Amino acid sequence: MNFMKKPSLFFLLSLLISQVVSAQSPGVLSIRKFIQLNADKMISEYSEFLALPNVAANPVDLKRNAAFIMEMMTKRGIRNVQLLEASTRGIPPAVYGEVIVPDATQTLVFYAHYDGQPVDPTQWSKGLEAFKPVLFSKAIHQGGVAIPFPSDGKYEGDWRIYARSASDDKAGVAAILNAYDALIKSGLSPGSNLKFFFEGEEEAGSTHLNEILEKHKSLLQSDLWVIADGPIHQSGRKQVVFGVRGDTHLNLTVYASRRPLHSGQYGNWAPNPAMMLARLLSTMKDENGRVTINGFYDDVIALSPTERKALEEVPSVDEKMKNELGISAVEMPGTSLGEAINLPSLNINGLQSGNVGKMATNQIPATASAVLDLRLVLGNDWRRQQQKVISHIKAQGFYITEKEPTDEERKNYGKIIKISPEDGYNAQRTTMDLPIVQKLLAALKTTTPEQVILQPTMGGSLPLYLFEKHLNAKTITVPVVNHDNNQHAENENIRIGNFFEGIETMGSLMIMK
Amino acid sequence: MNFMKKPSLFFLLSLLISQVVSAQSPGVLSIRKFIQLNADKMISEYSEFLALPNVAANPVDLKRNAAFIMEMMTKRGIRNVQLLEASTRGIPPAVYGEVIVPDATQTLVFYAHYDGQPVDPTQWSKGLEAFKPVLFSKAIHQGGVAIPFPSDGKYEGDWRIYARSASDDKAGVAAILNAYDALIKSGLSPGSNLKFFFEGEEEAGSTHLNEILEKHKSLLQSDLWVIADGPIHQSGRKQVVFGVRGDTHLNLTVYASRRPLHSGQYGNWAPNPAMMLARLLSTMKDENGRVTINGFYDDVIALSPTERKALEEVPSVDEKMKNELGISAVEMPGTSLGEAINLPSLNINGLQSGNVGKMATNQIPATASAVLDLRLVLGNDWRRQQQKVISHIKAQGFYITEKEPTDEERKNYGKIIKISPEDGYNAQRTTMDLPIVQKLLAALKTTTPEQVILQPTMGGSLPLYLFEKHLNAKTITVPVVNHDNNQHAENENIRIGNFFEGIETMGSLMIMK
Repeated sequence: MNFMKKPSLFFLLSLLISQVVSAQSPGVLSIRKFIQLNADKMISEYSEFLALPNVAANPVDLKRNAAFIMEMMTKRGIRNVQLLEASTRGIPPAVYGEVIVPDATQTLVFYAHYDGQPVDPTQWSKGLEAFKPVLFSKAIHQGGVAIPFPSDGKYEGDWRIYARSASDDKAGVAAILNAYDALIKSGLSPGSNLKFFFEGEEEAGSTHLNEILEKHKSLLQSDLWVIADGPIHQSGRKQVVFGVRGDTHLNLTVYASRRPLHSGQYGNWAPNPAMMLARLLSTMKDENGRVTINGFYDDVIALSPTERKALEEVPSVDEKMKNELGISAVEMPGTSLGEAINLPSLNINGLQSGNVGKMATNQIPATASAVLDLRLVLGNDWRRQQQKVISHIKAQGFYITEKEPTDEERKNYGKIIKISPEDGYNAQRTTMDLPIVQKLLAALKTTTPEQVILQPTMGGSLPLYLFEKHLNAKTITVPVVNHDNNQHAENENIRIGNFFEGIETMGSLMIMK
Repeated sequence: MNFMKKPSLFFLLSLLISQVVSAQSPGVLSIRKFIQLNADKMISEYSEFLALPNVAANPVDLKRNAAFIMEMMTKRGIRNVQLLEASTRGIPPAVYGEVIVPDATQTLVFYAHYDGQPVDPTQWSKGLEAFKPVLFSKAIHQGGVAIPFPSDGKYEGDWRIYARSASDDKAGVAAILNAYDALIKSGLSPGSNLKFFFEGEEEAGSTHLNEILEKHKSLLQSDLWVIADGPIHQSGRKQVVFGVRGDTHLNLTVYASRRPLHSGQYGNWAPNPAMMLARLLSTMKDENGRVTINGFYDDVIALSPTERKALEEVPSVDEKMKNELGISAVEMPGTSLGEAINLPSLNINGLQSGNVGKMATNQIPATASAVLDLRLVLGNDWRRQQQKVISHIKAQGFYITEKEPTDEERKNYGKIIKISPEDGYNAQRTTMDLPIVQKLLAALKTTTPEQVILQPTMGGSLPLYLFEKHLNAKTITVPVVNHDNNQHAENENIRIGNFFEGIETMGSLMIMK
């Protein structure tokens, strides 16, 4: 097998040492062997899967993806394969299947999602199309070039496949189903009952997930959900993530004159909404990046001593990331990335008023808009967090409306803002000391000689609270893909090494007892 | 003729009274009669002119406009029609023509410009296109609807034509050339030698105007330049403007991470350029709208007693405008519009970072940009004024660059801003007591029963200092268009009444001796 760098004496030697050090289980070694012999078939099937458009907005495309997954499952001998549908027509279904193991004392559900983010074709690199998977010699930003798929089935770890959802999250589907295939065909037995749940609406906000979970409550009973989504740690090490941040948004629009004005004829007499908005936003954080909104950091449930300890053991990537991102200062000086994502956050996703660049004109714009993104940690309630921001805006002297201001409102108020709050959801965190979590960590350790990183929470958001709410389920996230995969953006990709290592990861969890 | 409100007994009566009161000259009445009979032809020619795209950035389009104007001039018997070109190829030329009158003791040059501001089609009202002129029953913001051009040639004063440059400043070109046409065809004689100068680069900053004026110095000798640009007074009265503000711009871009980041995974750790920019902009003004930049209001040459007296006699439109614009507070409480435009100003023309609305994504943008517009009054120097702002930005801890930051700069500086200063020009003011100015005021008074307003300066900017510098010329601005014309923005329009009254205004100046 050849998905690391080109083999060399040094490589073979270090592989040998790592296997000794990590006490890799015979099971994992069998799976690895199977991958080595079947890399070609796996990649070929994966390319077919990636070639199916899966933009969340197009239900017909998503049905094709669901059918493809059902076939993958049936081919592998998975039973009770079916679509779990919402009551509304046209909603992408979840794909379900199961393997019931006699004598198993526990049940795991493996989760991934098969829908993808929208694609702006103009942003992808020349020659790349989101749904024509192409193999590259390494990452494009590292100078990689397109290469043919190898006829000898030998893949190198640093090669990448570029396509929408190559990482997010068809990689999760493929890692799970290939792991089961490798396990069965290597003569191994699952250590638990296995259930498979592949969602089709994650990138559209999982709007019908609650209904699907509620409807299939009994089918979906388990001891643990394993969520295969998100990237491994920036250090390249495997990680287990115990929680996610919650998320919600506020859309703000400041209103000034009814129409854009000539900035000469009315400049410094008529109010400028861009300046009003800038002044408002500037009151929300101090110069050290701390949010100054009253009570913003209240409600937070502190990390437990175990979680705090785990966080301290996460290797720091701050300097590496600063270098990669070309920044020399962080927003909250003295706060590490790990600490920052364990705090509620306020971010400006977008700002717009008038025009800049070639389209700029000499105007006082009529309105100025911003989108605020509020990430939440355990203890925050998304409605309460929105309310804190709204109260702050009110305290700055703004009259708040939910629609275009009326003539009457314009007459009565000097500072008018429209606030359109979006729906949101809260954070979720699974406690680290559950016995089944301990078993899972032990299983994962058999796949790697390196430290497995334990993250109390990841920075991103997933509606994992739904599993708790509807099924009383425990969830834990086990990512497989590289951190620089460009998920949600142009040139999404997966590193081949991560693709194969992800199969081992999932396999190790399936055989654990 | 029917370009006021629908005729009524009251209207006819008031028209009669106004003619008596204002002692309108027979010349002006002949011109009015001519307009009445030829409204249809004039509007039809004007619509053709407006249908020619004239965005300042596109020299090929501007050439077509120049050719159209030359034809208009030739058709009217204007002599020596020619293009005055800059030495650089592709620069929109000025269009020149003249009428030399035996025995005339003075020479007037009539100025307007034919290029227009950029167009963002998405911002125009549904169904409107910038270069497809459409007639409306009144202003859109007053509930006007599209109506066909009348087959009987009868136009009402409150109707409007919507198109880019309908007011700014093809209206100036049309008012001047139609006035000459009306005058000649009514058997009147010009009282002065008339020269015509239509610029094609005004909205692009008149970058080559100096060269054109210098090159054609002797051709352009005159006693007075009449600048037909900008709107009449908001009270609806005619006005004469003795000066203009200067203008210059600074384009700002704050740089944060090299690429947009997932706002969950890096939120509140990676710097947010939109917040950095908002904080910077908020330091530029206090809560009373006063610019807090060091020395910003220095250098200003105070109004003379005559100018101050004229300013005091300008009817206040503050309450009317607040009502019209739907604002209840002005930027500098206690400062009138008239006072405000006699101060240097700082305005945000545009703000942009990430996306808002439907295109918003959960990102920390990589950059945030703003355009600052600095208006200048007599005494300000545009380079010095820019420098004050740049020094202020530096004092806020920013590292200033003129291009994309290098890796080295990214490593060394936490707050990086690119500043791209644009060229600019200074303010200009013509003294009120020149004899030819007094004659001009007397001529104007023959066109209206109402007070003609004398404005020491207008809020807008024109590079009038160039005429003084290169030709030692006097300039005076005589606007024709309605104040609510949306110039420089979407839905630009001209009120039909103003279109026709502008012709009378220009005609009265051409026949004055």
